This record gives sequence, C-alpha cells and structure tokens, in this order.
Amino acid sequence: MNAGPLAGLRVVEVSAFVAAPLSGMTLAQLGAEVIRIDPIGGNIDVNRWPLTAEGSSIYWSSLNKGKRSITLDLETEAGQRLATELICAPGEGAGIVVTNLPGRGWLDYDSLRAQRADVIVVTLTGNHDGSPAVDYTVNPSSGFPTATGPPGGVTNHVLPAWDVAAGLYLALAVVGAERERRATGEGQAVTLALSDVMLATVANLGYLAEVQVNDTGREPTGNYVYGAFGRDFATADGRRVMIAAMTGRQWTAITTATRLAERLAHIEPMLGVDLSTDGGRYQAREAIAAVLSPWFARHALSEIEDLLTRHHVLYGVYRDFGQLVAEDPRCSLANPLFAAVDQPGIGKVLTPRSPMAFGRGGPGPAAAPVLGGDTAAVLTEHLGRTSEQVRSLLGRNVVSDPTCGATT
Amino acid sequence: MNAGPLAGLRVVEVSAFVAAPLSGMTLAQLGAEVIRIDPIGGNIDVNRWPLTAEGSSIYWSSLNKGKRSITLDLETEAGQRLATELICAPGEGAGIVVTNLPGRGWLDYDSLRAQRADVIVVTLTGNHDGSPAVDYTVNPSSGFPTATGPPGGVTNHVLPAWDVAAGLYLALAVVGAERERRATGEGQAVTLALSDVMLATVANLGYLAEVQVNDTGREPTGNYVYGAFGRDFATADGRRVMIAAMTGRQWTAITTATRLAERLAHIEPMLGVDLSTDGGRYQAREAIAAVLSPWFARHALSEIEDLLTRHHVLYGVYRDFGQLVAEDPRCSLANPLFAAVDQPGIGKVLTPRSPMAFGRGGPGPAAAPVLGGDTAAVLTEHLGRTSEQVRSLLGRNVVSDPTCGATT
Repeated sequence: MNAGPLAGLRVVEVSAFVAAPLSGMTLAQLGAEVIRIDPIGGNIDVNRWPLTAEGSSIYWSSLNKGKRSITLDLETEAGQRLATELICAPGEGAGIVVTNLPGRGWLDYDSLRAQRADVIVVTLTGNHDGSPAVDYTVNPSSGFPTATGPPGGVTNHVLPAWDVAAGLYLALAVVGAERERRATGEGQAVTLALSDVMLATVANLGYLAEVQVNDTGREPTGNYVYGAFGRDFATADGRRVMIAAMTGRQWTAITTATRLAERLAHIEPMLGVDLSTDGGRYQAREAIAAVLSPWFARHALSEIEDLLTRHHVLYGVYRDFGQLVAEDPRCSLANPLFAAVDQPGIGKVLTPRSPMAFGRGGPGPAAAPVLGGDTAAVLTEHLGRTSEQVRSLLGRNVVSDPTCGATT
Repeated sequence: MNAGPLAGLRVVEVSAFVAAPLSGMTLAQLGAEVIRIDPIGGNIDVNRWPLTAEGSSIYWSSLNKGKRSITLDLETEAGQRLATELICAPGEGAGIVVTNLPGRGWLDYDSLRAQRADVIVVTLTGNHDGSPAVDYTVNPSSGFPTATGPPGGVTNHVLPAWDVAAGLYLALAVVGAERERRATGEGQAVTLALSDVMLATVANLGYLAEVQVNDTGREPTGNYVYGAFGRDFATADGRRVMIAAMTGRQWTAITTATRLAERLAHIEPMLGVDLSTDGGRYQAREAIAAVLSPWFARHALSEIEDLLTRHHVLYGVYRDFGQLVAEDPRCSLANPLFAAVDQPGIGKVLTPRSPMAFGRGGPGPAAAPVLGGDTAAVLTEHLGRTSEQVRSLLGRNVVSDPTCGATT
C-alpha cells in the first residue's frame, strides 16, 4: 500500500470537539502523521456523548481515527515546553500545528515562530474577531433554521454541518500553507472563523445575493427541493422515499416510471406553467405532488425501488441510523470505504477510510488511539528522549502514557 | 497582495451544480488559476434558481467566483480535442481536471493519461459504483432527516451539506494529488462518491458505532443539542435565541446571566441528575428549559443579548437570510471576509473571499466570469492559438466567446 499523498507530513493537533479533530483525522487519512496532544486525562471532549455502556466516548474515538495520542500537563511550563518542542521539531514535513483552543501564550504564532521560523500555525476561532462560537450558535444566524422544516418555526439541523465544513477547510489550510512553504521557505499563520465558514457558504450558495438583488428571502418549502422538483412521499408499507429531478431527463424518468405522464400533462394548462423547465416544475410542485402521492401510497417500498431503479429515477430511501446500518448496502463491508476495525474500548465497528479514493493508494481504515498511548513513543522518536528521561517525565506527571503503567 | 498558497496551479473544471463548482472556486480563492469549461450556452446549471428579475442565475454566479470561463461544443470531436489539449497542456502546475460529469470517453483518466502521463483527474460520482446520486437523494439515507425537526416525521435540511463537504474534499484531493505528483512525478485518478462523503461523515460523527455498539439510534430531540445542554428560546419581542453549554464554565455562564442558579439547583434532587456534567444536563434538558423559558420570554432580544454577552454565554440569534444581511455585523463590510463586488448580470453584492485567512495573503473577493468570456484569451494564452485560429473556431461554432461578438 502506498503511504498516501501526504506522506512525510507531520501535524500536531491541539484540539477538542468536531472541527479541529476532523481536520487532523482527514490529514491522517491521507498519509500524514498526526499527533493529537491532550491534557493528562483528556480534553473537554473526552467524555462527550454518545458513550458505550462502559463509559467510553464513541464520539471521541470516531473523530480521532488514525492519529497518535500524547498527553502532557499543559498547565505546567514543562508540559508546554514539550508541546512546543514537538510542534517546532526539525524536519521538512514537521513544524505544523492545527488548533481550535483559544490562543494561550505558548501556542501563539509568534511564540512558536521564535522556536521555528517557518512554522505553520492553523487556528480555528469562533468569530473572526476571536470571540467564541460553536456550530450550535453559528447555525441559528445562518438563515437555514428558518428555511428548514415546517413553516413558521425554526428547525436546527442535527448534522453539525458548519463544523464538518470547517474541519475540511482546516485540512486544506494545512496542505495549502505547506505547499507555499515548500515554494518559498516561509511559514505562516492561517486563521479560520467558524462563522466565516457559515457566512462564506451562505454567500457561495447565493442566499446573500438573493436578498440583496431580489430583496426576497427564501420561503420555507418543507421537504421540497428549491427551484426544481423534488419531494418525499409515503409508501404503502409505511416508509418514505425522496425523489428529485434536476434535469429534463430526470423528470421524464419520473413520469415514465410512474406512468403518470398523461395526468401530469393537465397541470400545464391548469396552472399556466411550463413543466419542461426546472422553474416551472418548482412552481407546480404541489400539483405534481398531488398526482404522484397516490402512486407512492399504492406501492410498497420494494416495488417502488424496483420501478424507480429500472427507469433511472434519482431517489433516496429515508432511513434512520439503525436502518442505514441494517439495510443500505453502501453502508457495509461491500463498500470499499469500510473495514471492520477493532476500536479499543469500543469494539469492532464499521470504520471508514477517507472518502477520497486515490488511485495510487493511501491509508486504509484505522482505529483511534488510546488516549495518551503514544506519549512515550513520540517523546523517544521525535524528541530524542531516552527511556530514563521518559520515566522521569512520567514520574513527575509532566506526561502520562497508559501503555507505560499510568501515573495518574 | 501575495498570489496565494496555490499560485502556479492551473485546474480545469468540467462541472455543474454545487460540489464540483465549489471545489474549483475554493481552489481559485487560494490562488489557483481555475478554468471552467462549459458547453456553448452553458451547462445544466446555467439557469438554476434563484434568478434575478432579468433571468440571470444568482446560483451560478455565486458558485463560480474567481474562475475563468470558456465555452466549447463538447458534442463535437473538435471541442473535445480542445478541452483535452487544455487539460493536458504542459506546465508544472497544469495537467489537472476536476469534474462531476458522468465519465465520457474523452474525459476518462486513461484517455487523458495518453495525452499527459502525469495528469491528475479528480472525479465526483454519486455512489462508489458510479451510479448517480445528488445531495437531495443522499441525505434521506443519512439518518439525519429522521433525527431533525419534530419527532415522527422526516425533515430534510435545506443546506446542501453533503455537496458542500464534497466540494471541499474535491479541493483537498486536487492539492493532495498535486503534492504527490511533485514528490514522485506521478499523476493519478482520484474518485469521490457523494454518498461516501455522507457515509464517512456519519461514521466520523459516531452514529454508525452507536448503532453497532449500543444498538440504539438517535432519538429526535427537536432543537435540543445532543449530549449537552442547548436549546432555542422565544424572547418577549418575538425573536428566538439559541444558547448552548458544552463545558462547565459555559453552563455557569448561563446560570449567572439569568440569575436562575437557585431555581435550577432544585432539578438535581428532583430528577436525581448531576448538573455538573454534560450528560446530566442533557438528561435534565426539559426541566432546565422549563426554568429558563420564562426568563427569555420576559426580556426583549436586546436586553438578552446584552446580558448573555456580558456573562460570556455561548448564544446565537435566529435570523432569516434577510435579517442576516440587515442585522448581523459579521455579514457586512465590517468583516474582512467580504467586499462589495460588482457581479456582471447581477449587481453589486457582498462577496466573500476564502474563509481561510492566510497570513501571507491571497486573492481577495472576486466576481464570477461571464459565461464563455475567457474563451479567446485562454485559447491564445494556454493553447497558443493565433487570433486567426480563434476567429476560425468561433466561426465554426466549435467555441464561443461573448466578448468577441457571440457566434450562437
């Protein structure tokens, strides 16, 4: 197996929660060596729900796959010095840190640059002025909760989408800055604000310009797709299916699969719309749904899937997380994305590699480390500490490593 | 202004809709030269809603900022040859294409590799087997619609979150593969399936392991944050505010700002929970909300903002897209993310640069091109065509360029 496109890169991560850990994990899944530093006992996300019956955080292990984990007493100068030494260690691919922790002295760009002139420091903040914000408080201002779900209320989406996007931007910031360093020899600080991720995305999807140019917001449309035809329908056996047509061919697939072309043709003169355009189908969405609903209600899911597949209709079956694991063949070992990996403290679980499949190969699915389990190895390997020196650090509780007999 | 971390990179994009255009735009915002190729007249997303009163697609311009645009007749061999020539043009940073169009002969990795041995071809598909899927049909199977919104139904989120994540992964795939090419001299094909982005994310957030290990799905919790305390509240003046506490300090901030610590203390003996833990606060969320609700209902938004800010409570004000533009100072020229950019066919709109702020600088906010407006210039600059040759191509309708007097 090829080591992956980021082979040779060493990234130190000082992080908690979703975005920054996701960035490190994304880099590790492309072949970088990623070392997450935590305080002894773990950071504030170490016990984040969901937990196993024994109290292990499924959340933590899921977001730290493929990394190495070291634990230091970051409240002491000795611990901070070790962390600094690791971040600023020599080596062409080293000298990189990604963090979402509020700037403390030792983790500042200027402090680190004093130790390694070409260091790369990628920092996630809440807002661009450095004030805190989390996915859950950024999302309400995005406009999306007023456009999601039933009209009249606000509906938070459960997917922490801003954190996910931020994590991927952070990974890109690391690779981009390292590219520039190799071209120029210069490091730099890169900052990313979670609310800027939200704002840029809202703008990139056209919502800001729509308000500014058309002076209209977006009406909430429940489960309808905006500006085209798409909606969910109930089946005869109590399931739900989403269909969508973003092109004329996809629309024809729907009318053919359901054999409802003739009935649907009445909508054009009835409403004065042009069903050959996405806009016309969006304007007529409720009438279209009224014609299609009885068809879905008459058929069981399996028949519907059969017909929609045969006619190349774009559709998706609604599944809860349990049904996703139980039913969807894409969510199984049949998909090369996954392997069954034994996760310490959790058990054997479906574990993905990167969703990017590089033709030349890269790391496969990997487990998360045991908290602090790489401390001694990293101190030896990257900081040249002797086993005696490591024992001394363990004994003074400057570091901890459960594989050496825990000190706390 | 520094040219940005991806200066020297030239990426050809053959794309439509959200994910692939977002990837090219993301690369352009970091300094790459990104050339989007469209069929003459535009691809299937050229008229995607929302539109201005004059019929210009706000969607298209928002997702193609900072690129160059060329239009070719991709149905003809002459057009395909030109596209191939551009993708495989010599140059250290050239030889890269990103696409979400279904594989056609000329755009296959093997065909392109025959023209340039180290070409990088990054392809987005719907599913890993190459079958089609879009954000709207991938999302239903993700589990999130059953966990979003009121219990008992399914609620699609309106943010095309899987497309956004896929676009960022595609950008990372380009930069990763280019890094590997510079290290090894070898190009490669990289594929990304939209449903793999969904599946990897669901796994990365712990939902698959939760089902497999705990045999429980996620109960829908409306606007409550899972595993901690967070919820929305109505204010006296008809607005809504989201608050969240992911740490003990943030929880104390809430009890202090609202002066409700004493009342909230009754919850521990009442329910037998430990409010000093995230899990305990999650278990007691409805009781906590019952105590907090009247406080929010008694105060106007401005008083609430004042008190929450002063006590460092993590909060977000719900805003629709219009309110976001009208009210939120982060969504204005006061935020260095934005400039007022005159977008051809649209008007002057708040336009973001990349949300990543590179210390050494990079491109500022930029407009989208006019469809096909760079055709003649790109043919001349990168393919060495003389103005006579360009005129001939325009005359034969193999290419079009509105800046040369349109040919169609």
